[in-house]
Amino acid sequence: MPRTAGPIRLAELARVLGLEVEGDPQLEIGGFASLEKAGPDELVFVRDRGHLAALAACPARAVVAPAGFALEGRSALRSARPAHDFSRLMQHFLPLPRPPAGIASGAHVDPTAEIHPTASIEAGARIGPGSRVGAGTVIAANATLAAVVVVGRDCWIHSGAVLRDRTQVGDRVVLQPGVVLGSDGFGLVADEQGRPVAMAHRGRVVVEDDVEIGANTTVDRATLDETRIRRGAKIDNLVQIAHNCDVGENALIVAQTGLSGGTIVGPGAIVMAQAGTTGHLRIGARAFVGARAGLHHDVADGERVFGSPAMEERTWHRAMAALKRLPELLRRVRRLEQRLDLRAGDASPSTGDSDRA
Amino acid sequence: MPRTAGPIRLAELARVLGLEVEGDPQLEIGGFASLEKAGPDELVFVRDRGHLAALAACPARAVVAPAGFALEGRSALRSARPAHDFSRLMQHFLPLPRPPAGIASGAHVDPTAEIHPTASIEAGARIGPGSRVGAGTVIAANATLAAVVVVGRDCWIHSGAVLRDRTQVGDRVVLQPGVVLGSDGFGLVADEQGRPVAMAHRGRVVVEDDVEIGANTTVDRATLDETRIRRGAKIDNLVQIAHNCDVGENALIVAQTGLSGGTIVGPGAIVMAQAGTTGHLRIGARAFVGARAGLHHDVADGERVFGSPAMEERTWHRAMAALKRLPELLRRVRRLEQRLDLRAGDASPSTGDSDRA
Amino acid sequence: MPRTAGPIRLAELARVLGLEVEGDPQLEIGGFASLEKAGPDELVFVRDRGHLAALAACPARAVVAPAGFALEGRSALRSARPAHDFSRLMQHFLPLPRPPAGIASGAHVDPTAEIHPTASIEAGARIGPGSRVGAGTVIAANATLAAVVVVGRDCWIHSGAVLRDRTQVGDRVVLQPGVVLGSDGFGLVADEQGRPVAMAHRGRVVVEDDVEIGANTTVDRATLDETRIRRGAKIDNLVQIAHNCDVGENALIVAQTGLSGGTIVGPGAIVMAQAGTTGHLRIGARAFVGARAGLHHDVADGERVFGSPAMEERTWHRAMAALKRLPELLRRVRRLEQRLDLRAGDASPSTGDSDRA
Repeated sequence: MPRTAGPIRLAELARVLGLEVEGDPQLEIGGFASLEKAGPDELVFVRDRGHLAALAACPARAVVAPAGFALEGRSALRSARPAHDFSRLMQHFLPLPRPPAGIASGAHVDPTAEIHPTASIEAGARIGPGSRVGAGTVIAANATLAAVVVVGRDCWIHSGAVLRDRTQVGDRVVLQPGVVLGSDGFGLVADEQGRPVAMAHRGRVVVEDDVEIGANTTVDRATLDETRIRRGAKIDNLVQIAHNCDVGENALIVAQTGLSGGTIVGPGAIVMAQAGTTGHLRIGARAFVGARAGLHHDVADGERVFGSPAMEERTWHRAMAALKRLPELLRRVRRLEQRLDLRAGDASPSTGDSDRA
Repeated sequence: MPRTAGPIRLAELARVLGLEVEGDPQLEIGGFASLEKAGPDELVFVRDRGHLAALAACPARAVVAPAGFALEGRSALRSARPAHDFSRLMQHFLPLPRPPAGIASGAHVDPTAEIHPTASIEAGARIGPGSRVGAGTVIAANATLAAVVVVGRDCWIHSGAVLRDRTQVGDRVVLQPGVVLGSDGFGLVADEQGRPVAMAHRGRVVVEDDVEIGANTTVDRATLDETRIRRGAKIDNLVQIAHNCDVGENALIVAQTGLSGGTIVGPGAIVMAQAGTTGHLRIGARAFVGARAGLHHDVADGERVFGSPAMEERTWHRAMAALKRLPELLRRVRRLEQRLDLRAGDASPSTGDSDRA
Repeated sequence: MPRTAGPIRLAELARVLGLEVEGDPQLEIGGFASLEKAGPDELVFVRDRGHLAALAACPARAVVAPAGFALEGRSALRSARPAHDFSRLMQHFLPLPRPPAGIASGAHVDPTAEIHPTASIEAGARIGPGSRVGAGTVIAANATLAAVVVVGRDCWIHSGAVLRDRTQVGDRVVLQPGVVLGSDGFGLVADEQGRPVAMAHRGRVVVEDDVEIGANTTVDRATLDETRIRRGAKIDNLVQIAHNCDVGENALIVAQTGLSGGTIVGPGAIVMAQAGTTGHLRIGARAFVGARAGLHHDVADGERVFGSPAMEERTWHRAMAALKRLPELLRRVRRLEQRLDLRAGDASPSTGDSDRA
């Protein structure tokens, strides 16, 4: 569906990727599309054999595909990483509309802020006192960097994002619209009358290189130290990262998940959507936390947990299957009791407390 | 509680609705109120017989009510849709404070954008290059339309909303504050080192006519095609709509629900609060998904599902009732085993695997 | 980690708190730190005996601690509320970067708005017609007050927050970035064709004194009356407060929780993260609702509930422990049936319906 400005020869696409053309290098490509929607002049990609049926019905004449796939006469760019290479082509030939370098009229840049001359500051963006913006970075309209915020090079801070004071952001970071970094953590202390008052938060948020954070996600500053999102981590929309968390390198956190204060997420761990953690626990390296899991305990390196309260994968699958049969089970136990002439009430709770299978 | 600028005769209210007055057409109405808070000169409405006790205790002298309700001497506007007609009266007599038509001083409108002369662009709003705003539409302060965004007529885009590049919005659409449309979807591909990198997203978001979207809700753009919210759909606050979703006509999605990538919601379906779906499933037309349901499978047209994992309604109610009795059930089974002189450990897991009732 | 502008003598810290120094009043403090990260010249605090092991390994020479703790030669400020006093010291010696009083160039203040001369309105902030901002209040860059909004004194309205028309905010209120107050509630009425249309909302949001609300949290206006957040309540990030809710004094609501329409939260109640309520129920004074609880019924004063559907604490702990044993229980019941030569299918559903233990 997304169309390029004009036709591009397949040879040119191959050159960008450093690949060879299999088939017709003069073939003209006019856009990029899914297998379901592609026209004859649009490029598609196939990742695995699950796509072959859709490909058979697709009129596209050119495809990015793994080696060895039969492509029924189509021209091909053979790739070990078709999705990645297809993505690289879109980035190259369909660049996002980018504001010109410099500070637009209507931007609110404090005179003490340092803006690299190749950075773009759009109208309505605010750069507070003592803040710095690196080379090639875009601060979009109505985004806000408060005081003493540092953003590295080649970042894209979308509209409506807010980076509170002293937030640090590395290079090649993308913040989708509405991201909040550096909001005060939710820590409460009792005052003289026993009423809850907010603990002062004077820590900060540090986002390392190559991190991407989804729309309206919030990352609270640490009470005293740092809330840190490590290199390459990817966070989806509407996620809550509480104060003092540490999200590991290349970790993935899917939409609407909440990490309580001080949660440590190991490198390469994956936390699926709508999960939650109690405070101060550790999710191990390369661990997998299923969607909607509720964690009360640490997760070991490489472990896979599911459910709320979270369980080991196989236990969870069985427990969930059994859950639907619970009413039936009640009936069956009652029938057994009738057969044995036992009444349910005879089983005292005190006996039950020591029940061990 | 909300008061009109001055008293309005009941006959005038009736005229706006195209209804007749039952009782005193000269009665003066000074505001609109709930049954619990109304004063004598405020208009109230009753929807069904469940409201009659509250009405009996309410001093309001005028009421919008269905035909046939005894109203104890009050004047009435008899309506087949009391809530809808009451709502229409509020819209007519209590208009929202509306900025004047035109582009306010302090608005950031790109010279290549097209703004209809009857549209209102408030101070701090940003309209990016190539964008278009239709007749009668309000773009509120500090809202952002990035490049090549189209918004139709009679829309209200509230403050802090962000529409990223190429988003399309129909007519009579309301976006509450902080809505994000067109953020990149959460799609990851592995790079040469096996690290997760964000898949380029070059699709867009299309919002059809008469859609309303709640505060801080996020709708991601499609990878290649469209994420589409169809005519008349209503979405509550803090909802996540992932890339490539298709929300059907007049569907309702309640707060904090998350739809994973490619979810299809049928026309007229209702998804209650805090539910979630795994990717690429279909919720049928007029289906009902209960609050906090977790869907792993399609939902048929008209089907009602509850729970996580989601179950048919009756099964879920029974399972939930039985859940609280589970500890008791464990005790009862143990007692049965004692009576039969069986030890729990005798049941081998391998037998259990083939357990079928 | 957070460092003060220069060294401060311990006697000066004591003076601010109204406490005596135990040890060396001339000791110079250069910053505030956690027990884990502190250097020798940084102040730390200990709350209870659980911190003593960490303190033993900490080089800090000064500590805020309860009376009676052995501090191994450190100087001390003895406090009945160490966390609270430590927080007060940070507020005093590490003030947030504060914009100067007055209306900054680039702020969008309607000529009919009233701004106290000691308030600070940052660039890009919008103050709509008829709105009022009290003494000492900060309206940060790109925050928006729509028409006829009232904000009291000594508040901090962070960037990206949006207060829709007629919202009322008391004194000493903090709104983190992206908070939305006064968005329309999600109330739907059927039109002539039976399609859902949004009910007009003409109520408002009232936030009383000393409330703090977390980043990207949304509070909908009432249909007719008020959605009210009472004095001292503290609300975390990404919380949804629907129309007509009433959150009690000093209540705490943790991240990503959703309160459906008309929920009443009693004074001092605590609702943990990711919980949800069905509409129109009441959570009693000082009640405790566990993380991820799903409430379908009222919670009594002081009651503690957990789980979804929510249960009394002890029941829930037992049910969750039993849940993992459910597959085993199925096996055990099957074995009992085999021993008694019963087949599961013999238990008819109609018998089951009347099953009562």
